Amino acid sequence: MTDSARQACIVGIGETRYAKWGGITDASERGLACEAVQNAAADAGLDVGDIDGVGSFADDRNLGVLIARDVGMRELRYAGMSWLPGGGGACGALGSAALAVEAGQAEAIVVYRSLCQGQHFRFGSAAASYGQLPTPGFHQASNLLEAEMAFSLPFGMFSAPIAYAMVMQRHMHLYGTTSEQMGAVAVATRAHAQRNPRAVMHGRPMTLEDHQASRMVAEPFHLFDCCLENDGACAVIVSTAERARDLKRPVIRIAAHAEGAPGEYGWGPFLDTNGSDALYAGGGTDVIARDVWKKSGMGPGDVDVAQIYDHFTGLVLLVLEAFGFCERGEGGTFAASGALAWPHGKLPNNTHGGSLSEAYMHGMNHINEGVRQLRGDSTCQVDGARTCLVTSAAGVPSSAALLVRD
Amino acid sequence: MTDSARQACIVGIGETRYAKWGGITDASERGLACEAVQNAAADAGLDVGDIDGVGSFADDRNLGVLIARDVGMRELRYAGMSWLPGGGGACGALGSAALAVEAGQAEAIVVYRSLCQGQHFRFGSAAASYGQLPTPGFHQASNLLEAEMAFSLPFGMFSAPIAYAMVMQRHMHLYGTTSEQMGAVAVATRAHAQRNPRAVMHGRPMTLEDHQASRMVAEPFHLFDCCLENDGACAVIVSTAERARDLKRPVIRIAAHAEGAPGEYGWGPFLDTNGSDALYAGGGTDVIARDVWKKSGMGPGDVDVAQIYDHFTGLVLLVLEAFGFCERGEGGTFAASGALAWPHGKLPNNTHGGSLSEAYMHGMNHINEGVRQLRGDSTCQVDGARTCLVTSAAGVPSSAALLVRD
Repeated sequence: MTDSARQACIVGIGETRYAKWGGITDASERGLACEAVQNAAADAGLDVGDIDGVGSFADDRNLGVLIARDVGMRELRYAGMSWLPGGGGACGALGSAALAVEAGQAEAIVVYRSLCQGQHFRFGSAAASYGQLPTPGFHQASNLLEAEMAFSLPFGMFSAPIAYAMVMQRHMHLYGTTSEQMGAVAVATRAHAQRNPRAVMHGRPMTLEDHQASRMVAEPFHLFDCCLENDGACAVIVSTAERARDLKRPVIRIAAHAEGAPGEYGWGPFLDTNGSDALYAGGGTDVIARDVWKKSGMGPGDVDVAQIYDHFTGLVLLVLEAFGFCERGEGGTFAASGALAWPHGKLPNNTHGGSLSEAYMHGMNHINEGVRQLRGDSTCQVDGARTCLVTSAAGVPSSAALLVRD
Repeated sequence: MTDSARQACIVGIGETRYAKWGGITDASERGLACEAVQNAAADAGLDVGDIDGVGSFADDRNLGVLIARDVGMRELRYAGMSWLPGGGGACGALGSAALAVEAGQAEAIVVYRSLCQGQHFRFGSAAASYGQLPTPGFHQASNLLEAEMAFSLPFGMFSAPIAYAMVMQRHMHLYGTTSEQMGAVAVATRAHAQRNPRAVMHGRPMTLEDHQASRMVAEPFHLFDCCLENDGACAVIVSTAERARDLKRPVIRIAAHAEGAPGEYGWGPFLDTNGSDALYAGGGTDVIARDVWKKSGMGPGDVDVAQIYDHFTGLVLLVLEAFGFCERGEGGTFAASGALAWPHGKLPNNTHGGSLSEAYMHGMNHINEGVRQLRGDSTCQVDGARTCLVTSAAGVPSSAALLVRD
């Protein structure tokens, strides 16, 4: 660890209400972004005018410099977008903000995600224009990925569940992973959401039988293996350790962060060109895990609680394996053992309810929950939690961050 | 200065052919990007597979992770897009890459710009959809800016020359700046292009009389006050000083970089809400100049040669003032004195021909030319040049970098 005065820390978190897809009609994505930024500043005890940087990640439909102006930043010294498509970029954007703060480029950077999908092009939806360039709308990064799919779209692989289903089929073939084991991820997460009033699925408990009985979306994924789609926004503010100590919240260090992918699999299930097991068995996050442990000098045994990106239940298993919480191929057994469930599991995971049951904010809310755990005020609080791993996506270029409270 | 092993350096530069707007019809933007990346790797003496990061800036119509795959990177550890709209981001993207390399996130990051405007939505063109959200096409950042213009578009302020003309009108009013003084910028730059075979305006010399006789676009801007529009691509590779010393080119340090804008003017001429002279007299780059000099411990007297972003001649004057090469309001006199002309000027500027006469690559080619000067192989070589200032845009959130050869 470093204890330098400029060590990057998360000093504030904020969010708006979360609603189902299309559920927010009285505010714009831009307005929600500003609300989340303002809430994060208030949480930190920071004048929003003192924020001097803005970050987000690919597929953002807003423009950071306009958010900066709207909320009243007095000066802008950083504006960066992590270029990891889809959900891969939340921790990447956090990491890029950390680099800028540590280097002295800015003093306080807000990183946000805002979604009003009912008012815009829907992320991940199939369109007649797929495979053409240019593709319509703002859905830049993901649309460009989809435009790559000229050879797979005609055969029906036109959405994320279908593409990721193939990844999981391979994992099931290689290791005997079962639908019930994936269901354990969903059931634990839904249980956590029952204690979290922010969660879209609050008040809607679910059993493994419910999971098994839910309709099939793309084999092996049942409906309850797939994340929600939501409207809302959330934001975190990154500043220095020195500043963090002067503000009103506990000091949460960004101890390590990493992003990327191994080249051998061609960057994801939509694009795989050689069927390598680096994708089909590992989700491509092994290289990020390697960098996070190397930079932090820590390992899976040091982690008290995790917020693993849960676009689909099965991908959580692959990431747990890649980060060494269990052996390769043992993710299903690990989950089914109750390891991911609060309060008694070995590694309580997605204690807010995750993308499956709190809200699908492209992984930004996983960072917020990581901060809550280390502050000691999660609704599924892990006693004495000091270290939290947060990951963003798997199976596409991805990212991760290790948060530590000393 | 730092001499640490990880100090960020530019180890390679590359470009494709440059052509007039719509002139490249036998290659895509993505293909040109790959060609520029490959050329930069060859220039560095680096295996393209060893590049492990990719960067660009707002309005890029490609997706970095696909470029990374296309050129054959073996692993991706950084993908970032500077979020400064329009031409403001070239040095910002360079700076973000520098931060990532210095922090050890990646070992070699390529930053590129690629344009085939004839095949796509034209940057900066007016459209019936302006003022609506969502706007069409890929022109994300700039279109969002333009969507802000609901209160100015109906009065005819629908393009960059018109908006920036107002900035210059104010400068002329305050300081007595003249069209002939702006012409001195264009004439010097065109002369430089006559020695540069890459330049689109190579073989087409221009006098001040030609400048004065060219048609008015938006008063005070004549045609020859406005940059070109071009197709082509260019790229630079950022790596560590340690790596740079093992490669085949002279070691060029990124001694300082900065980005951003002061909040008081509302982020630019399209968006100005209060008519502050921070915009109208300074182009908003004062804060970047402050940070570049502070970080580098250098000042304008240390600079041997400059590549000042030249979307419009007059904005060059504002940036020269902001960086302290002359007093506020003296930019016109400075330019008219011959200060910007190679070989005898006090500060030879845009020795490649700039955006006015080499090519409009949104400022990326200014970085390439800065590297050429410090290597000693510009076609308008400044004897013994060791320090070059490069800037990206003015009047919108902007960026700058100071390059040094020790």
